[in-house]
Amino acid sequence: MANNKNKVSETVIRRLPKYHRYLSELHDKGEDRISSQELSDLTGFTASQIRQDLNNFGGFGQQGYGYKVAVLKAELENILGISTIYKTIIIGSGRLGSVVSNYKGFRDSGFEVVAMFDRDEHVIGTSVGKHVVKSVDELEDFLKEHDEVSVAILTVPKEGAQSIAERLAECGIRGIWNFAPEDLEELDHVIVENIRLTDSLLTLSYYLTEEDR
Amino acid sequence: MANNKNKVSETVIRRLPKYHRYLSELHDKGEDRISSQELSDLTGFTASQIRQDLNNFGGFGQQGYGYKVAVLKAELENILGISTIYKTIIIGSGRLGSVVSNYKGFRDSGFEVVAMFDRDEHVIGTSVGKHVVKSVDELEDFLKEHDEVSVAILTVPKEGAQSIAERLAECGIRGIWNFAPEDLEELDHVIVENIRLTDSLLTLSYYLTEEDR
Repeated sequence: MANNKNKVSETVIRRLPKYHRYLSELHDKGEDRISSQELSDLTGFTASQIRQDLNNFGGFGQQGYGYKVAVLKAELENILGISTIYKTIIIGSGRLGSVVSNYKGFRDSGFEVVAMFDRDEHVIGTSVGKHVVKSVDELEDFLKEHDEVSVAILTVPKEGAQSIAERLAECGIRGIWNFAPEDLEELDHVIVENIRLTDSLLTLSYYLTEEDR
Repeated sequence: MANNKNKVSETVIRRLPKYHRYLSELHDKGEDRISSQELSDLTGFTASQIRQDLNNFGGFGQQGYGYKVAVLKAELENILGISTIYKTIIIGSGRLGSVVSNYKGFRDSGFEVVAMFDRDEHVIGTSVGKHVVKSVDELEDFLKEHDEVSVAILTVPKEGAQSIAERLAECGIRGIWNFAPEDLEELDHVIVENIRLTDSLLTLSYYLTEEDR
């Protein structure tokens, strides 16, 4: 496995959560095994693509038998690091921050929110879900005391995103889940994963508009 | 333009919102023109890729001069259909539905929420933002009376997503912005754009875990 490090393309990585989603469903239904062809019918990827994708990590299938559902699911969970808990903070306690802090898929994916920060005096000290909102001024002190925190979620407006991200990077944060509509400049040693709501909407708008042309 | 219909790849389409984002910023800063090289420095795409992408829609640039910021921005808005208003309903009035209904980028992208639906008796009749939540039982009647509604946002749990999507398709809804963690089976004449929060999180988890291996 170590030899494959960094070699698997992002396109392949982004298909893994989908495989995991379907394997979990099959597992819940009590299915014992599945062929790559059946997985293809479910996911819409070709059977050969699925085999290739999984071969990046060791294969896990047997010719003529397919995959054992429980085994492949467990392997995917291992590959995706689902059982590793990443302690997480949220910057931005607005509606979106509040949704995220209560998001079920969040905990199921191995992220645990331990604190929430905001810069707005009116919300600092108030409760959002089970967290009392802290001031962003305390960010550095907090992260010094809690060096087990490795991930931050940014639900701040566009304007503040880059400077907060740089502060987080300086504090040793390793991953940022970024909802701010801003392309963060590359940060040393920080993995940034973006959710681009507006870009997604505009893509929908494009296809609707294209139909009308 | 009509000849190019359906020929532009999705990968190109998904870069257009990003171009638009940067053009809007340049426009706000009062910039008059920009070269494809400068756009490349901003966006991280190569200059030749940018020229190729834009050539799909007619080019808009001049060799040795670059692009007029205001013109390219307006052309992108036209291509993306930003000035077309799509009347939209939200199915699912929970936290996420509430965030979406108040989402600024939503209105700025040309979508206008006109009603909100839920199946939970406890929230039907209550106010979420400026909308009084209607029962999903009224969905068909509402859409018959309001045939100007063309888009629906799904913020329902996984279990209900497919059946609601089918009902929406039968009512003539043309586009679905889907937040449900479910792959909707293909629907005739409906464009589905997915936001996959959990898949995004698991991708982040993968890269964090990979560093630890």
